[in-house]
Amino acid sequence: MNGFDTVISGGRISTASDTFFADIGIKDGCIAALGMELGDAAEVIDAAGKWVLPGGIDGHVHLSQPSGEGIVMADDFETGTRSAAFGGNTTILPFCLQEKGRSLHEALKAYHAKAAGKCYIDVAFHLIISDVTETLLGQELPALVEDGYTSFKIFMTYEGLALSDLEMLKVMETARKSRALVMVHAENYDAIRFLTDRLEQLGNTAPKFHAASRPIAVEREATHRAIALAEIADVPVMIVHVSNREAMNEILRAQGKGLKVFGETCPQYLFLTADDLDGLNMEGAKYVCSPPPRDRASQLACWDGLERGVFSIFSSDHCPFRYDDPKGKLALRGRTSFRWVPNGIPGVAARLPLLFSEGVMKGRIDIHRFVAVTATNQAKMYGLAPRKGTIAIGSDADIAIWDPERKVMLTHDLLHDGADYTPYQGMEITGWPQLTMVRGQVVVRDGILEGPKDHGMHVVRDRSAFV
Amino acid sequence: MNGFDTVISGGRISTASDTFFADIGIKDGCIAALGMELGDAAEVIDAAGKWVLPGGIDGHVHLSQPSGEGIVMADDFETGTRSAAFGGNTTILPFCLQEKGRSLHEALKAYHAKAAGKCYIDVAFHLIISDVTETLLGQELPALVEDGYTSFKIFMTYEGLALSDLEMLKVMETARKSRALVMVHAENYDAIRFLTDRLEQLGNTAPKFHAASRPIAVEREATHRAIALAEIADVPVMIVHVSNREAMNEILRAQGKGLKVFGETCPQYLFLTADDLDGLNMEGAKYVCSPPPRDRASQLACWDGLERGVFSIFSSDHCPFRYDDPKGKLALRGRTSFRWVPNGIPGVAARLPLLFSEGVMKGRIDIHRFVAVTATNQAKMYGLAPRKGTIAIGSDADIAIWDPERKVMLTHDLLHDGADYTPYQGMEITGWPQLTMVRGQVVVRDGILEGPKDHGMHVVRDRSAFV
Amino acid sequence: MNGFDTVISGGRISTASDTFFADIGIKDGCIAALGMELGDAAEVIDAAGKWVLPGGIDGHVHLSQPSGEGIVMADDFETGTRSAAFGGNTTILPFCLQEKGRSLHEALKAYHAKAAGKCYIDVAFHLIISDVTETLLGQELPALVEDGYTSFKIFMTYEGLALSDLEMLKVMETARKSRALVMVHAENYDAIRFLTDRLEQLGNTAPKFHAASRPIAVEREATHRAIALAEIADVPVMIVHVSNREAMNEILRAQGKGLKVFGETCPQYLFLTADDLDGLNMEGAKYVCSPPPRDRASQLACWDGLERGVFSIFSSDHCPFRYDDPKGKLALRGRTSFRWVPNGIPGVAARLPLLFSEGVMKGRIDIHRFVAVTATNQAKMYGLAPRKGTIAIGSDADIAIWDPERKVMLTHDLLHDGADYTPYQGMEITGWPQLTMVRGQVVVRDGILEGPKDHGMHVVRDRSAFV
Amino acid sequence: MNGFDTVISGGRISTASDTFFADIGIKDGCIAALGMELGDAAEVIDAAGKWVLPGGIDGHVHLSQPSGEGIVMADDFETGTRSAAFGGNTTILPFCLQEKGRSLHEALKAYHAKAAGKCYIDVAFHLIISDVTETLLGQELPALVEDGYTSFKIFMTYEGLALSDLEMLKVMETARKSRALVMVHAENYDAIRFLTDRLEQLGNTAPKFHAASRPIAVEREATHRAIALAEIADVPVMIVHVSNREAMNEILRAQGKGLKVFGETCPQYLFLTADDLDGLNMEGAKYVCSPPPRDRASQLACWDGLERGVFSIFSSDHCPFRYDDPKGKLALRGRTSFRWVPNGIPGVAARLPLLFSEGVMKGRIDIHRFVAVTATNQAKMYGLAPRKGTIAIGSDADIAIWDPERKVMLTHDLLHDGADYTPYQGMEITGWPQLTMVRGQVVVRDGILEGPKDHGMHVVRDRSAFV
Repeated sequence: MNGFDTVISGGRISTASDTFFADIGIKDGCIAALGMELGDAAEVIDAAGKWVLPGGIDGHVHLSQPSGEGIVMADDFETGTRSAAFGGNTTILPFCLQEKGRSLHEALKAYHAKAAGKCYIDVAFHLIISDVTETLLGQELPALVEDGYTSFKIFMTYEGLALSDLEMLKVMETARKSRALVMVHAENYDAIRFLTDRLEQLGNTAPKFHAASRPIAVEREATHRAIALAEIADVPVMIVHVSNREAMNEILRAQGKGLKVFGETCPQYLFLTADDLDGLNMEGAKYVCSPPPRDRASQLACWDGLERGVFSIFSSDHCPFRYDDPKGKLALRGRTSFRWVPNGIPGVAARLPLLFSEGVMKGRIDIHRFVAVTATNQAKMYGLAPRKGTIAIGSDADIAIWDPERKVMLTHDLLHDGADYTPYQGMEITGWPQLTMVRGQVVVRDGILEGPKDHGMHVVRDRSAFV
Repeated sequence: MNGFDTVISGGRISTASDTFFADIGIKDGCIAALGMELGDAAEVIDAAGKWVLPGGIDGHVHLSQPSGEGIVMADDFETGTRSAAFGGNTTILPFCLQEKGRSLHEALKAYHAKAAGKCYIDVAFHLIISDVTETLLGQELPALVEDGYTSFKIFMTYEGLALSDLEMLKVMETARKSRALVMVHAENYDAIRFLTDRLEQLGNTAPKFHAASRPIAVEREATHRAIALAEIADVPVMIVHVSNREAMNEILRAQGKGLKVFGETCPQYLFLTADDLDGLNMEGAKYVCSPPPRDRASQLACWDGLERGVFSIFSSDHCPFRYDDPKGKLALRGRTSFRWVPNGIPGVAARLPLLFSEGVMKGRIDIHRFVAVTATNQAKMYGLAPRKGTIAIGSDADIAIWDPERKVMLTHDLLHDGADYTPYQGMEITGWPQLTMVRGQVVVRDGILEGPKDHGMHVVRDRSAFV
Repeated sequence: MNGFDTVISGGRISTASDTFFADIGIKDGCIAALGMELGDAAEVIDAAGKWVLPGGIDGHVHLSQPSGEGIVMADDFETGTRSAAFGGNTTILPFCLQEKGRSLHEALKAYHAKAAGKCYIDVAFHLIISDVTETLLGQELPALVEDGYTSFKIFMTYEGLALSDLEMLKVMETARKSRALVMVHAENYDAIRFLTDRLEQLGNTAPKFHAASRPIAVEREATHRAIALAEIADVPVMIVHVSNREAMNEILRAQGKGLKVFGETCPQYLFLTADDLDGLNMEGAKYVCSPPPRDRASQLACWDGLERGVFSIFSSDHCPFRYDDPKGKLALRGRTSFRWVPNGIPGVAARLPLLFSEGVMKGRIDIHRFVAVTATNQAKMYGLAPRKGTIAIGSDADIAIWDPERKVMLTHDLLHDGADYTPYQGMEITGWPQLTMVRGQVVVRDGILEGPKDHGMHVVRDRSAFV
Repeated sequence: MNGFDTVISGGRISTASDTFFADIGIKDGCIAALGMELGDAAEVIDAAGKWVLPGGIDGHVHLSQPSGEGIVMADDFETGTRSAAFGGNTTILPFCLQEKGRSLHEALKAYHAKAAGKCYIDVAFHLIISDVTETLLGQELPALVEDGYTSFKIFMTYEGLALSDLEMLKVMETARKSRALVMVHAENYDAIRFLTDRLEQLGNTAPKFHAASRPIAVEREATHRAIALAEIADVPVMIVHVSNREAMNEILRAQGKGLKVFGETCPQYLFLTADDLDGLNMEGAKYVCSPPPRDRASQLACWDGLERGVFSIFSSDHCPFRYDDPKGKLALRGRTSFRWVPNGIPGVAARLPLLFSEGVMKGRIDIHRFVAVTATNQAKMYGLAPRKGTIAIGSDADIAIWDPERKVMLTHDLLHDGADYTPYQGMEITGWPQLTMVRGQVVVRDGILEGPKDHGMHVVRDRSAFV
């Protein structure tokens, strides 16, 4: 019980269940001791007056994904993990996208190459299945699950990504056999196409019509369908980025029947509305993401779902494009119709401060629920627990130290991502991550990047604790 | 107030709202008077001690439809309308099926030819849309609605019939513009294919596996989807042949939101269960229809929906195939797997006696609800009111006289259809239609066919009263 | 088929299920014939261009009831039945209130005396049980049910009226044994007292605080409790004057479980809100009734319940007090606190025109539903069918002829009641009852009272058709 | 970081959120350190292969309460806390019952005297309010809340205990002002009396009729009413001992509206049914408690509520009476009718092993949920956190060491309470508490009582973390 590499002393520690005052003794990147006055160490970090929390885990992040025809995502692994670290995160789960006609192995090879040596914090990949072949189902996917890629995402919309119900069932069947977790983007592609065509025929092409092209019924329908297919395939399912009460109620109803149906919501559904898409000129493009932000009642519904546990996790769906950039939101075709504006907004750095300030500080959720939905449940959901997601003996020393009193007005320069704006510009925040530590290594301290660019590792995951 | 062609005297008349004792004076095929002691007429029918009800309207009947590869439907228009008349019906609505690559006009021409001179009772066609072309949507369908074909059915399952969500939306959009009514067969085709493949791989090919290949979730999913698409297209929708509580609850929920979503249930969901498919040898094939009969709890749910008004109508989904016949249920391929057993069972004659006996006589529904779901609501739903579906001045004299005390054990010979069995064989019935009159002409009396084969007419319909 | 006393010719007749054009032949006060051109009669009433409907039945009317300490109800049987007739009604069901310590027989004797020779239209009494003795339960009540007093009302609030749960159960038990129908005024008395005390302690005594003293939870709680007690006693129950969605949902949920729970709503819940209680000076007192009008969302809920059939009947809860009168709303104590303002507002004449105009003419409900909730279902619910509540052979000729095009601005002088105001002052109405006929006798024609004051009879009732 | 009084080494520790392997260093009765190899101490307890959990907290225990007419509760504080310790508990919350006409101070004085020097584990009192006076509401209760008695229970049934709705509202109002937590026993007294009278009139007096006298509707009604009153008084409320889905759904619905309504269930509702009351002779009396155990579906509902979080806590409602004893279940009057059988069964020792074995070992709930509902949530709910209910630095060393593999057949002698039977006789259990430690003192080890009888302390409580 001595010889710690680092001691974090005097902080107020919260886990998903407990709050207590203690020193944290860190050795070899892991939490070796919790106690009073753990004494000296190579480095002692004074956390008196601060809140010491498990580092954030963001289970829904897009980095360096191709987005078609000259569009370039604003973040690669370097800027993406950097931004995440500034926002109090210690692990993110980006997607590894299979391209049509290619194998998952090829995809993984490519994404590992993109990430190699460029990560400030730890990463683990979800797989995106776009080409459902018998080889993929029968051999490749089961083998990759064994190798620690234990979750995969499928889409019910987007050209080139949308799977048929039959393909979804086959992927789910493989997931059941392999005990992997299926994540679903639930929006009805045909309905979106139908409505988009009708809107364009009427000349309604401004960004604000993006919201009109994907009304709540479009999401609710696909949510119900995804759940029904999972019920038929007898497999758990995670419905990602839920935006409104109707879709949430489908999840709630399924949970009430004892089905293992999980839900996620995101900052854009708590803090933005469709009105934000109705900006001057093309400003609304900054808020184009799918599902679109809805209205005030939907925000309250999503808060409700977070508080009551309908949603297990709160992720960013970080999917950044530069706004004032021909390779970003305002690429040539994007100016002609919302149909061509790339879908997605940045959020990996803003996620935690937003929820901390609006959720914890304003009394909507307690600090334990905050830790649960941003770290502990994420770790359990995606097979990272007990190594990640909590402050406990033997866990990785993935820690964020928060100053609960710091007041910040959100501006883009605080977020350190590759985009050129934040959708949350100007929001008043109380509480800010002052130090982010990954496996004992300080990555960000007092707004300064300290960690080396190659500190982040790929994490081989277990099965979900909930499957 | 005299010179009636016919007087029905002394009966106990019930409409969807009232019960009273009166004579009915009929002239020129219409109800000309209601009163006490209407006096003499060319024919006086004594209905003392009998119940005089509006003739049944069956909004869901398949006749002379092609069913693939050597399978022949057991009823044509002659046997089908004959059987309907024996069962107390005065109007049926068969389907006119568009073949792929053909126009609706061609289909109508063919079906009118099949029906010409061969109908004992009145008929009106629903259209089945199988080939969604721009011409059909933009010109043909709107014109046919104006011509009195004011409802059309679309399928979410069956090879060659299942429409994509996009096609469904386009048909619904045309319906909205034309104020026509869309009827939907709601089962998820992909899920059925998936489950059927899996069952066959396990060697589970007996008729009883038909039920396992289409579990409740398959129907509930499609029901929810059909409703969501109708919500998106902003159009009323009729969900036909609902078999269980989960699907019914989707309708109930939509009604609770103020959407115009209607439902139908059928005898097979009140009186059969999946256990009936598990007969010796291939006997189960006699009960193969879609959705399949479920279980006792589902029966109770369907009764509940009938009583509470979740379902507006109760139809037969008459779709007859001979059992012991190489062109019927036991065609060569049908013996190899349930997948090839033609879907459908007879019911046009049994529908009313079954509901009368089990519903009215056993006190589950009153006689007014019986008349509503079997006649009045059918007429209103499908644009036949006020000409059809009730006993009122000016309406067609479409009347069934019931003996409420007659006890009958159901056997196939009582039903006079073209099949060689009835799924309701052996049921004890109290109450039987003793006389069926269509526009003043007695068609069936005391079990004897009296009406001429060409008495039935095609009825040009108005828009649905509920659209 | 001739020699009618009266023929109503050429009108458009609607019942709860049908609409048709026909003459009505009336003999001996009953409907003897329906047909085309019924020919001559002692009196022929030309109804061309008019709608001929069953006369309204109002199942919830208070007349000549004592209201404590010098307060006098504004209508006795003469003015009350007169006003009802002007509003298109042909039967009303006033309450016969048992006084503490007195028998029901004494109460009936008194109310029959109040009514004798003073009724323009027919009446039948509900009993109000206020003193639950063993004699009443064991002997008096069962005998009165046999005598045709087949419904009784109990209160969960009001000093001197509120029964305990135990008393309610005992009354319900008697109802079950006698097959009578129990009507319940559902508000939690203790909660009202508690809130009233708190409001008065804060000096909140203006009429508008009447609404605050009886929030929705007060009504919802009592509604749930009344239903639960009825469930325990195994007896049907009618929840009268439901004002909001939460209470309505309790009824809906019970109906969904198959319980015989019925509901009623009233004009004040469709057309007034709590804001109306917030008038200048004491004007708000004009709208003090219980439960209080709520808000716009509650109005929509009540419309929803009417449309969907959660509510079987729509009654007035006519309970009139003069406003500018020391024996009315502004009696001395009423000016000191809302607690002392007599509860109740007039509505027996306005009920039908309001629902006709806002419901039928604006397309919220069809004419069949209008007839059902205002006449046919009332008759069935309270044991008056088939004699009352419809237009059918053998029924009483209780008929209202409506001019569907007449436009009227509601003012009190049109209503002919004993109050000095109407809460619906100034509403623009389309459609008005032009003639009211009771058992063949014209009572009101073109705004002129024609019927004799003693034409109205007491109607001996059957059991409810729904029990 | 040395000089621990005790070290628990090598165990597998679980909290409500985490599981990890570590040593626990204990000093001065508190947890001073968590870490690997904490080294020597005065006592080292080897927990290798064992599960180290927070000691159980039982929020619902009756000890030494008077039960009327010669009936004596089977446990006093000595036997009750002893039994609790054998069952893995470290704190219990017994009730301090106010007698009619007496003050709460008198009651507390009496109960503290009963407990003084006779507790093996820690105790804290809930207050039972039976006499709602202005003094109690205005002075006594607020003062006692400040003194750490921060929760009180009220009853809706039982002679001498049942409060009126008005009294409930007044107690709730005081709770709101004092930020105390109100616990409610929710059953409708009048309905129970009514049904009991009817059952006795029919001669149905055997213990099994206890269940029939309190059907689910009786509990559901009171649950809804308690919630409505809490809604009106604007105060959180805890519904204790919920037995079935209908009552649970009232809680769920309230939670869905954002109300702070909490629920508790108990072993009798997971492991017993009404059939248990139907034993030979008077054996059924062993299972008489209120609400009564229901049926298999209700058990599943209660499991469902535990898993999904509708219920925050799982308590014993330990309320023991000897069976074969004239002062217990079979007192003279108890033999004459179920009405006189004292209500209540023992469970303080069986609660944790039952839930561990049937819940955790059988995979229904994970160990984290087990810890939450039996310890952590109990501590938070009743103002004992962070001192009690978890394993964290600074918390009391209240710990139970479980042998997860030990198989035990439940017999009464294992439970060490004052009763003469256990309702769970013969159940096969996997997992047993091997050592119970309170504030660092071993109380029970390997089935031997080690702790002194006066080790237990009274704990002054904070406000509920959830109020």
